[in-house]
Amino acid sequence: MGMSVPSQAPAIARQFRLAAVPVGLPKESDFTLGQAPLVAPQPGEVVLRTAFLSVDPYMRGRITGIRTYADPVKVGDVMVGGAVGQVIESRDPALQLGDFVSGYWGWQDYVVTSARAVQKLDPKIAPVSTALGVLGMPGMTAYFGFLEICQPKPGETVVVSGAAGAVGSLVGQIAKIQGCRVVGIAGSDEKIRHIVDDLGFDGGFNYKTSDYAAQLKELCPKGIDCYFDNVGGALTDAVFLWMNPFGRVSVCGQISQYNLPKPEPGPRLLPYVLTRQLKVEGFIVTRFQYRYPQAIGQISRWIQEGKLSYREHIVQGFENTPHAFIDMLEGKNTGKMLVQV
Amino acid sequence: MGMSVPSQAPAIARQFRLAAVPVGLPKESDFTLGQAPLVAPQPGEVVLRTAFLSVDPYMRGRITGIRTYADPVKVGDVMVGGAVGQVIESRDPALQLGDFVSGYWGWQDYVVTSARAVQKLDPKIAPVSTALGVLGMPGMTAYFGFLEICQPKPGETVVVSGAAGAVGSLVGQIAKIQGCRVVGIAGSDEKIRHIVDDLGFDGGFNYKTSDYAAQLKELCPKGIDCYFDNVGGALTDAVFLWMNPFGRVSVCGQISQYNLPKPEPGPRLLPYVLTRQLKVEGFIVTRFQYRYPQAIGQISRWIQEGKLSYREHIVQGFENTPHAFIDMLEGKNTGKMLVQV
Repeated sequence: MGMSVPSQAPAIARQFRLAAVPVGLPKESDFTLGQAPLVAPQPGEVVLRTAFLSVDPYMRGRITGIRTYADPVKVGDVMVGGAVGQVIESRDPALQLGDFVSGYWGWQDYVVTSARAVQKLDPKIAPVSTALGVLGMPGMTAYFGFLEICQPKPGETVVVSGAAGAVGSLVGQIAKIQGCRVVGIAGSDEKIRHIVDDLGFDGGFNYKTSDYAAQLKELCPKGIDCYFDNVGGALTDAVFLWMNPFGRVSVCGQISQYNLPKPEPGPRLLPYVLTRQLKVEGFIVTRFQYRYPQAIGQISRWIQEGKLSYREHIVQGFENTPHAFIDMLEGKNTGKMLVQV
Repeated sequence: MGMSVPSQAPAIARQFRLAAVPVGLPKESDFTLGQAPLVAPQPGEVVLRTAFLSVDPYMRGRITGIRTYADPVKVGDVMVGGAVGQVIESRDPALQLGDFVSGYWGWQDYVVTSARAVQKLDPKIAPVSTALGVLGMPGMTAYFGFLEICQPKPGETVVVSGAAGAVGSLVGQIAKIQGCRVVGIAGSDEKIRHIVDDLGFDGGFNYKTSDYAAQLKELCPKGIDCYFDNVGGALTDAVFLWMNPFGRVSVCGQISQYNLPKPEPGPRLLPYVLTRQLKVEGFIVTRFQYRYPQAIGQISRWIQEGKLSYREHIVQGFENTPHAFIDMLEGKNTGKMLVQV
């Protein structure tokens, strides 16, 4: 891994805390970098040095001050999020010095935590950063959110929004493995080139420069059977018009709506849901948690077989975490956005 | 039945044809009453005298000039719809003079049709008019659209819009049989009295005079698990805000939207679908056609056991069919609206 294992924990940890509930697109000043003493671990606890932090779209929904599927992060709280770290002190027999683990300790460079709250990783199987991406929450989201909710059949047409992101790029590849025609929507020509040339999507378009309806009509001549939506808004409105009878819509994200100060109105979609007999379902990936091992096994095999690839967009430096988060919300990443601490 | 069986068919039949694609709420002048010669039946055919015609909300969607789940009724075509009639001449051994049948011959007072295109009814089991209501399309819609799509569990809270109509009144009663708490929404105080006092709903409110949010909060203190939607629009927007995690929405109708000259915008609902992990599904009842006998048997038993009752709103006179249709679209009926010819 190229990292030495320090023999001792520092006296203090750095933490990013929520300074203000963001209005619109978050600003770096919505977070403050603070310090906290790193207390000595109790029996059953470990001290971790953070190696990678994850920044993900869902985090925007956690800092609105409003309860959704979970209590909000309050002003003054340490920012939440998935992380990978290395054990630098252990008072639990299950974890040894130097072991890598993943967990949910948020934006902190060191942390003392229960050994039971983290999962041990095997760096021989895959780079440990993948526990935050293709073999972690985004991978689970793509696997279950697409296969379980869309129930794709070979030959069907699948559209994915946010197609170059951590989740969308995997959904499109899984859809290809299932024998579907796959069209991706993303926010730059380079992203479209990437998903078509590198990931094997059948087509795609840059929503920032395209007529949605014209592109969908051209790229989906048989209509759309499955739509995996990361984005929402006007793009999704256009997709609904091309859904086939008995189409399935997996509502994974609505990133276009997250930074709006007020909800924006749109055309009512239920008349289409009715006449085309669509099934539209939202999900939070944790509902599938008991089946994660199955998905990790299957995705690992697809990677080994060369059927599925993944890309990581790694930002260096703990202090750049808020900036990376904001860049991710603006779609500046291709693949999984990570911070290497 | 109080009807004698005439020994001979008339020379002509009366028919209502679509005169114009309605703009907004249909007018009587959107239909013309015409005549057509009643040709002699061929082998395998029967001559029917219409006893009852059905007027239903879905018919508004069939006369928009636009293909939805079926080709539209075109200007000049005989208006479609379910009907019950009596055989007055038969050239098929399966049907005898005086037999009652149901079929889909539309707004005609007499018709010559293939015996295979109609279903024989047994007037001893139930009044023949029920083949257009509780034991017909509306009954099937309530039974499958609620049980299959909402998958209700005992103790859950169910909300039904259009609760005093042919479908909604049955959905609420079926939900009570399943052990649910049931709240109905309808368009008059008398309808609310009817569904609560006569049909056993736990509560309800008149959407024309109520604050939706306040009523839903009061009547659904544990939130809403299942929503059976006949109406759509602002009422449905309000219901979505009270849906519980893993709630199910059965999109049966959107009658508030059918007469709008232009689609109206509304708040985007997908963010709620996402964070509450809702499942929203539209359906056209014919997808369950192969299972109708099961539902007819079950509903008949519930009626015999006194667990389910139904009401018919019968308008007299073939010539009043367009008027009855318009009244039904305006919600002037309680229970199933029928025309007795």
